[in-house]
Amino acid sequence: MGDKMRKVTVRSPATSANLGPGFDVFGLCLDEPYDIVSVEKMEENGIKIVVEGEKSEEIPTEPDKNTAGVVAKAMMKDFNIKEGIKIHITKGIKPGSGLGSSSASSAGVAVAINELFNLNLPKLKLVEYAALGEGVAAGSPHADNVAPAIFGGFTMVTNYNPLEILHIPVEMNVLIALPDIQISTKEAREILPKKIEMEDMINNVGKACGMVYSLFRNDIELFGKYMMVDKVVEPRRAKLIPKYEEVKEKVKDKVYGITISGAGPAIISIPKKEHLLEVKELFEEVWGRVYYTKVGNGVSVLEKDD
Amino acid sequence: MGDKMRKVTVRSPATSANLGPGFDVFGLCLDEPYDIVSVEKMEENGIKIVVEGEKSEEIPTEPDKNTAGVVAKAMMKDFNIKEGIKIHITKGIKPGSGLGSSSASSAGVAVAINELFNLNLPKLKLVEYAALGEGVAAGSPHADNVAPAIFGGFTMVTNYNPLEILHIPVEMNVLIALPDIQISTKEAREILPKKIEMEDMINNVGKACGMVYSLFRNDIELFGKYMMVDKVVEPRRAKLIPKYEEVKEKVKDKVYGITISGAGPAIISIPKKEHLLEVKELFEEVWGRVYYTKVGNGVSVLEKDD
Repeated sequence: MGDKMRKVTVRSPATSANLGPGFDVFGLCLDEPYDIVSVEKMEENGIKIVVEGEKSEEIPTEPDKNTAGVVAKAMMKDFNIKEGIKIHITKGIKPGSGLGSSSASSAGVAVAINELFNLNLPKLKLVEYAALGEGVAAGSPHADNVAPAIFGGFTMVTNYNPLEILHIPVEMNVLIALPDIQISTKEAREILPKKIEMEDMINNVGKACGMVYSLFRNDIELFGKYMMVDKVVEPRRAKLIPKYEEVKEKVKDKVYGITISGAGPAIISIPKKEHLLEVKELFEEVWGRVYYTKVGNGVSVLEKDD
Repeated sequence: MGDKMRKVTVRSPATSANLGPGFDVFGLCLDEPYDIVSVEKMEENGIKIVVEGEKSEEIPTEPDKNTAGVVAKAMMKDFNIKEGIKIHITKGIKPGSGLGSSSASSAGVAVAINELFNLNLPKLKLVEYAALGEGVAAGSPHADNVAPAIFGGFTMVTNYNPLEILHIPVEMNVLIALPDIQISTKEAREILPKKIEMEDMINNVGKACGMVYSLFRNDIELFGKYMMVDKVVEPRRAKLIPKYEEVKEKVKDKVYGITISGAGPAIISIPKKEHLLEVKELFEEVWGRVYYTKVGNGVSVLEKDD
């Protein structure tokens, strides 16, 4: 370890932001899919980025345009790291899917650099750096995907400037469907209203608080029920996802909860064991790709090479 | 007990609704001040209401206009109670104070009738009945004061139709100031905007969820901090309370949190022990009446008379 370390490889998971009434606040870490991110010291100066895997041809590799590159650059500047690094990303999470694809790369590179250069940064600080990458991908430095990617479990971004994150460990199985369409985060944001009804805020505050309560009480049924009743964001974004309302109606008694993951088009549901196969098959039939996974523990280090 | 019981007397406490970002959702039961409510069987049919104590001359005693009368009437109809009753209310909670004065009478009479006629209703059902009285007082059947009055501790009204209440037991000291002005709930509601900014909703969802989190983690500092940052309701209602902003600014580092109680003019704060006297004296100097009390356990039965 120490100065001899040349390369760190991490597994950086998908995440699901919003969860209905928790728009721009809640995030859940998934176990799968995930990116593999490695950061390796190199002889020449600067940052070199290589991306392969899912839709990698669409991802820019210039350090100023790549989310992970922006994160790396900021960390290296702040900690006065003069060595060059090569970032190698294997995308397992499809970009533009609503599963925190860019956040996974940002969070992964933040953790890898922290390890490689022994920075010993606390998780909150790593979220702060990783969120800088989100500024490139989403237009503003949101932390609702990078927070669960770093902390694992369930997270709430309760404040920016200064960034405040609350974390609740959670065990839960989730079923993710990924329709084969692309929605840009920008498009999904522009469909939202600037102003909302007071009563819709009261509804969302109540339901979101109920979800937090349910996690402390281990009440998965309540969690899923309140996940489904946002009236501000989900109904508008639902229109962007083919057959979403139809399928939601069909399965709503066969799952604890179902809603759009992040900006979509991915859909997150909490399955009831007895209906799992039935719901999974329906998702596959309508939307194609499905992940049956569980809540994850955040970015993990896979390898450190001398 | 049973048919021989003639009279039940209860102690029905003040409550503080909203608590900043939890507008129309959160409620906290106080130990003081309180109303004393007794319900006694009488020979003649019908409902007779007597009110004395704080500002009692302003409270109507016709059963259809009195909040407790409305509650009693509904319960007696639903449970086919033919006997007449006399309701005697001693107001310890000033009406129109933002301390759930009408709710205390409604909740008290609901509990007293439940005891007197052995109805064995669950707390949720008692809240439902007591909320009917709020329809008379506030124009719509809100439950954010009657819920904590019945359950005690901290409550969240997370749904209406059907009514859903979540309850968290809490131990906490609170300092209440009661300026000598009157704000009607209707006036305090009319000052609120119909539409609000999306970002203000996100702020309130995050902070309210953080407050729920803080109660499970016993983090009173976080609870108080987030209690103070509503941007939707508190800034508008603050204008109705003389010197509110000035005093808030002065004490904000000497208390964990301070905000308007319900629709005001009462102010609720969570004092830091080391500054308690100083803050209490300032409140008294500026606003007059002050209660130093703690979170209460809800309506309690004082006496059952044969």
